[in-house]
Amino acid sequence: MLREILEQPEVLEKTIRAESGKYEKLKRFLREKDIDLIVLVARGSSDNAALFGRYLLEITTGIPVSLSAPAVFTLYKAKLKLNRALVVGISQSGEGADINQVLESAKKSGAFTLGITNEADSTMAKIVDETLLIHAGREKSVAATKTYTGQMLHFYLLAAILADEKIGYEKIPQFTDAALKLQPQVEELVQRYVFMENCVVVGRGLNYGNAYEWALKLMETCYVVAERFSSADFFHGPLAIVERRFPVMLFSPNGVTAQSNLDLLKRLKELHADSFAITNDKEIAALSSRALLMPEEIDEFLSPIPFIVPAQLFAALLAEAKGLNPDAPRSLSKVTTTI
Amino acid sequence: MLREILEQPEVLEKTIRAESGKYEKLKRFLREKDIDLIVLVARGSSDNAALFGRYLLEITTGIPVSLSAPAVFTLYKAKLKLNRALVVGISQSGEGADINQVLESAKKSGAFTLGITNEADSTMAKIVDETLLIHAGREKSVAATKTYTGQMLHFYLLAAILADEKIGYEKIPQFTDAALKLQPQVEELVQRYVFMENCVVVGRGLNYGNAYEWALKLMETCYVVAERFSSADFFHGPLAIVERRFPVMLFSPNGVTAQSNLDLLKRLKELHADSFAITNDKEIAALSSRALLMPEEIDEFLSPIPFIVPAQLFAALLAEAKGLNPDAPRSLSKVTTTI
Repeated sequence: MLREILEQPEVLEKTIRAESGKYEKLKRFLREKDIDLIVLVARGSSDNAALFGRYLLEITTGIPVSLSAPAVFTLYKAKLKLNRALVVGISQSGEGADINQVLESAKKSGAFTLGITNEADSTMAKIVDETLLIHAGREKSVAATKTYTGQMLHFYLLAAILADEKIGYEKIPQFTDAALKLQPQVEELVQRYVFMENCVVVGRGLNYGNAYEWALKLMETCYVVAERFSSADFFHGPLAIVERRFPVMLFSPNGVTAQSNLDLLKRLKELHADSFAITNDKEIAALSSRALLMPEEIDEFLSPIPFIVPAQLFAALLAEAKGLNPDAPRSLSKVTTTI
Repeated sequence: MLREILEQPEVLEKTIRAESGKYEKLKRFLREKDIDLIVLVARGSSDNAALFGRYLLEITTGIPVSLSAPAVFTLYKAKLKLNRALVVGISQSGEGADINQVLESAKKSGAFTLGITNEADSTMAKIVDETLLIHAGREKSVAATKTYTGQMLHFYLLAAILADEKIGYEKIPQFTDAALKLQPQVEELVQRYVFMENCVVVGRGLNYGNAYEWALKLMETCYVVAERFSSADFFHGPLAIVERRFPVMLFSPNGVTAQSNLDLLKRLKELHADSFAITNDKEIAALSSRALLMPEEIDEFLSPIPFIVPAQLFAALLAEAKGLNPDAPRSLSKVTTTI
């Protein structure tokens, strides 16, 4: 897992280089279509990447996005009206049976389909109209890391052609490299969390998917019961679980989401909770019990990929500190097939 | 909270009686519109009702549904293309500032807007094109119960006119009444969970929103760290947190979701986990560590409202058994305004 985390800047670079040409062709083609809905279909880590993609695509393109509920197709056999929709499947292995069933059904309904996957020869690649490849090499760890950020990168590439705008994603590999430099600090910090059994992970907007992903990594590799919320939803009820020293982990880049995170941190301080922020905002860092400081130059819009990196490191290193093997989580297998 | 739980059959009856006429008019009007997308906007318990509504509307009408991310509008100031969309706000108080901001933005984009609320004079009621009222009387408990099921009922009424089908919701008040008869059994069962600190709540398809809602009730009133998953997603990673005696709560009506719940229960048994099912399927009940048996005649399609009732009772009575006051959860207030 740690090795795959470290490979990420290279995977991102390679993916941009290898896939840009494909997007240029796709751009001309999609411009002729009258797309008024984007549907994203995924499970697990890929679904967390989709949650990020949802914000990114709505913000940049103005096209409404729906995160698909596969059971509607697989269990209830519904036929949705998707003739003006762009339907995007996201799966590391390309073998999620339910995801592929949704893609097949969408195609029959007249949707144009894309597949974001790490496996060029997968079932998904054979179903979709166009395959968008992550160039990560085989991912061996059960806990996805490099394919998660690879999937997120593809949403930037897709947003750029749909919005017909330069959005600066070329800087992401170098920001990701900078994030990896925090490893020694993370190594020291995890010692404080060795006996943590529960926590809440919070993120908002473009970093909301990251909150789900960090929580998932903590569940998979550290067996921590990790809840995930947006800082807005957290005030609607779940705040009641917070007691003295309850750990709340937080993604908080400077930018539009900072104010609501500040409000949350102030409330957490009153409740004597413990907070841990991945941030490049000095005020946020000062209010948190512990913080990992990211480079200031990373704009909120480009923060989700570099900001997940220290969280991945945290999960891998905490697992080790807890005496667990993050590469062999109990009860799990790499490819999950559900209907 | 307990009194409000008991009022539910009456609230549902009254809401059907008082609102049916409005829906008849709405039906003629909506038929002329060419709606190709439904957007649901809510937070907290209302968002859990929306999660149910999403499945119900897609299954019955074939129109794709998107659960809105308010931050896209409020923080990122995006303008979405919603000119052929039906946008439905759901809020007990009708005063959620961010929800109302999304509704205003949607209206400007040409969407037709509806508001499902318990307050006829609320800000939401003034914004939307048509208000759909829950006839619950004032809800005093911070933990929403009767307005949650009232909101769900409105999705049945809406689905019936959009699909132009009889869908049998008239039976729901009597099923809900039958569910309340389980109170003595719940009272006995909660004793076993007095020292529960963590759990996972699972539901799928039409009962997926209920998994979120039960988890929220357990967090709000019992301070239990309650995770929520669909039985499909649970296999993607989170299963790793399950250890001997780890409590997993489950909604499992007989019907299309039963098989995946059976698979999950078998796996949980291998892991020596503790399971608790609200079910009317004898096989599910036999495989669970504990079960609450619902009337067999309740079809899966009509199960979500009656099935949440024993879960509400469970939360209220467990809070009491833990020595807590479910009507005054720490750190919370009834109306939450977030931007």
